[in-house]
Amino acid sequence: MGKNLTSRSEDYSKWYNELVVKADLAENSAVRGCMVIKPYGFAIWEKMQAELDRMFKETGHQNAYFPLFVPKSLFEAEEKNAEGFAKECAVVTHYRLQNDPDREGKLRVDPEARLEEELIVRPTSEAIIWNTYKGWIQSYRDLPLLINQWANVVRWEMRTRLFLRTAEFLWQEGHTAHATEQEAMDEARLMNKVYADFAERFLAIPVIEGLKTESERFAGAVETFCIEALMQDGKALQAGTSHFLGQNFAKAFDVKFTSNQGKQEYVWATSWGVSTRLMGALIMTHSDDHGLVLPPNLAPYQVVIVPIYKGQEQLEAISQVANEIVADLRKRGISVKFDNRDTHKPGWKFNEYELKGVPLRIGIGPKDLEKRTVELARRDTLTKEFVAKEDVVDKVSALLQEIQEALYDKARVFRDAHITEVNTYTEFKEVLENKTGFISAHWDGTAASEAAIKNETKATIRCIPLEGQPEEGSCIYSGKPSKQRVLFAKAY
Amino acid sequence: MGKNLTSRSEDYSKWYNELVVKADLAENSAVRGCMVIKPYGFAIWEKMQAELDRMFKETGHQNAYFPLFVPKSLFEAEEKNAEGFAKECAVVTHYRLQNDPDREGKLRVDPEARLEEELIVRPTSEAIIWNTYKGWIQSYRDLPLLINQWANVVRWEMRTRLFLRTAEFLWQEGHTAHATEQEAMDEARLMNKVYADFAERFLAIPVIEGLKTESERFAGAVETFCIEALMQDGKALQAGTSHFLGQNFAKAFDVKFTSNQGKQEYVWATSWGVSTRLMGALIMTHSDDHGLVLPPNLAPYQVVIVPIYKGQEQLEAISQVANEIVADLRKRGISVKFDNRDTHKPGWKFNEYELKGVPLRIGIGPKDLEKRTVELARRDTLTKEFVAKEDVVDKVSALLQEIQEALYDKARVFRDAHITEVNTYTEFKEVLENKTGFISAHWDGTAASEAAIKNETKATIRCIPLEGQPEEGSCIYSGKPSKQRVLFAKAY
Repeated sequence: MGKNLTSRSEDYSKWYNELVVKADLAENSAVRGCMVIKPYGFAIWEKMQAELDRMFKETGHQNAYFPLFVPKSLFEAEEKNAEGFAKECAVVTHYRLQNDPDREGKLRVDPEARLEEELIVRPTSEAIIWNTYKGWIQSYRDLPLLINQWANVVRWEMRTRLFLRTAEFLWQEGHTAHATEQEAMDEARLMNKVYADFAERFLAIPVIEGLKTESERFAGAVETFCIEALMQDGKALQAGTSHFLGQNFAKAFDVKFTSNQGKQEYVWATSWGVSTRLMGALIMTHSDDHGLVLPPNLAPYQVVIVPIYKGQEQLEAISQVANEIVADLRKRGISVKFDNRDTHKPGWKFNEYELKGVPLRIGIGPKDLEKRTVELARRDTLTKEFVAKEDVVDKVSALLQEIQEALYDKARVFRDAHITEVNTYTEFKEVLENKTGFISAHWDGTAASEAAIKNETKATIRCIPLEGQPEEGSCIYSGKPSKQRVLFAKAY
Repeated sequence: MGKNLTSRSEDYSKWYNELVVKADLAENSAVRGCMVIKPYGFAIWEKMQAELDRMFKETGHQNAYFPLFVPKSLFEAEEKNAEGFAKECAVVTHYRLQNDPDREGKLRVDPEARLEEELIVRPTSEAIIWNTYKGWIQSYRDLPLLINQWANVVRWEMRTRLFLRTAEFLWQEGHTAHATEQEAMDEARLMNKVYADFAERFLAIPVIEGLKTESERFAGAVETFCIEALMQDGKALQAGTSHFLGQNFAKAFDVKFTSNQGKQEYVWATSWGVSTRLMGALIMTHSDDHGLVLPPNLAPYQVVIVPIYKGQEQLEAISQVANEIVADLRKRGISVKFDNRDTHKPGWKFNEYELKGVPLRIGIGPKDLEKRTVELARRDTLTKEFVAKEDVVDKVSALLQEIQEALYDKARVFRDAHITEVNTYTEFKEVLENKTGFISAHWDGTAASEAAIKNETKATIRCIPLEGQPEEGSCIYSGKPSKQRVLFAKAY
């Protein structure tokens, strides 16, 4: 099966699209731009959710749930936010179907059942949430309000790709309210840091934390923090964002509180989110021409055991050993699947689990029984070794950790090798075309230069790195003075 | 606070509505019929989800995710299902907003952005899922397909009530595909049993498992299993349903498989769901005039510790004891909150946690420090006792289990006392009006008698109990022969 996969060098984009479908992660649905997330893909997303949810709760956040729909009058209240999403809004206009008089047994929209006010399917929930917060916040005692929501959102994108850009996607959106500007800014920075930690420790994806330029900011935000990752084709991917919203939404929805000095003040806000797009980042960072490569921390099962046998008797003998290993691994908290299906041959199964990125594969055949060994194969390096049966659990346990780190290190080496400092526009264009990756360059801070570069090269400013050092220089485009390098790249 | 709650005897319906809001579980939103689930309410729902999810996985099911929207042509494919939901469908007709030329800074629906085919916001997902299954099922080797989805759905109800009936609600929907009729029927029955177990062991709600009559069946189902509970006002509440769908959806979406005999056959189906309606059942079954009463297995925190102190010094001494108890309880897996806020008085906190139904409250004052005791108060019985500090953890642990069982027993005694056998229609009406509850009566099996009774009394047949015994009798309405008693009640 792996052999049917287009190689990355041949067509990276095609490789990705094929891999998502062949590895049973997701597929396109009958609804334009909407995907079906298949059980294997969803199991990975569930692991991401569980870990993020734990991290949010540890930092004091609680979950809640707000309506799917936003009345148009609320949606348009924060004008910049509304303007930013207006062109991508799915709109509910009617609430009933009726029998179609012209088509026996079929239905049509009941023209009598038109809503007085149209409902927008949420592209993001600031409007409905801040309209609700108005009723929840009166005093400084009600602050901070630290809430997260796991939800589906809809943005009517014209060009969609599984996980990376879909009309409906799953995400979490945090929405917090604070008494002071500083506290809100700290929260936005903290949650961006939580995303960075999660990406590095679980997805095994090195990320750069930074600030967006004004033109790349979330619509309605005062400042947008982000984490930026680099894919194997040298294109950047924004993996998460955290916004300091100032008092924009508090003003739009008139959310004030009585401070501990007894004054009426507008509340300060943040919002932050990551989505099923992370699945795309995960797939594109680690996978190879044989299929998916999953970091052990997110693999639905970390180990698969495949019996190699002829006849029922051999299967039974192998199963006994396999079941012992399964029990021992589970005791250590390692997830394992014993694939004893007799409907598929071992070779088929080897290909299947390679394609699906299971970190470790244990093969057990009749010779292994004699020698009291098993064959242990690593998905990331495609290397194999024989291990004494009594050492299997320790070995697997150590290897899972090793693989998790190795994937991160490999991605990090690649990423670091693809951050190139340039000082001229010629150099910039040369690196962008040939070497690809992030380009660290001086920029004069104007939207005009940023737009001109984007227009001429398709590269955007991915972020102003938080860890960047002040450095005097001149803008690669305008030659005007600049005080810090920013990171450019072509991006997903 | 508890004192402001309308009593159940005064106005049960008002009591419920007030309680949901005052206990911070949910509130109405700016979107007609849609609710906001507040953090405290959502924490209970999360506990339900976690347990159900575990039970689904233990019975071999996997989670996946299907689109929010259903194209109208797919929606109408299974005609009975479509007809059943047509009158409650929210319909997306447009995909873009634009600046309103008549209202500066405001938006309107872009008339140019009309969808070629309208999209229905899923009221249930059989149509989109069976359209997808067509691509997943070719051979008997692909069966059974055991999938569950956690999702939001929309049914445009005209009269809504928090949790019980809302336009948007959260639920899980299982959708399974099987090679044989028997296997599908067994699955439908099994999942109804899972719901019954969950209701009894976690919600502490006794339920009756039964079959729906034809007129009460899910639209498109061949047979609907259900669990029925009884609320304190003597009205029944359908808490979960599990449907045997026969080959209806397989035929509507042309889903066939090659059997192990090489024949092409239609697939057999089930679907099953429970929703945030369970929150309503939970609230109405156990709560009292003082507020919410939560079973320990679902309480966001099972124990709250309230310090009773004057001045910082006393608080510090009490905190030391409290923190020891917190640590010891957590070691036992008991969730506990130490409310040391100095913004609220102990009396206010006592009322607050009574209203919020925290199963156990520990009060610690200066005298307790001297005597090395704490005051332990049970929410369900409102009884208090002093407990030696070294016994607290054992006592709490035992009490939590005792409360869980006591709530179930109390609800069971009430329910059992409200199942009344009647043999005449006069008696039926008398019990329905005065005693209320389930009425066990003979019915002739016709939709006509069922409809007449419903029309005249508002009572519906809640179910034909699975554990019912065959018994010859005559229908209370028509006098015609009947072979089994069924359960009638007025219902939510």
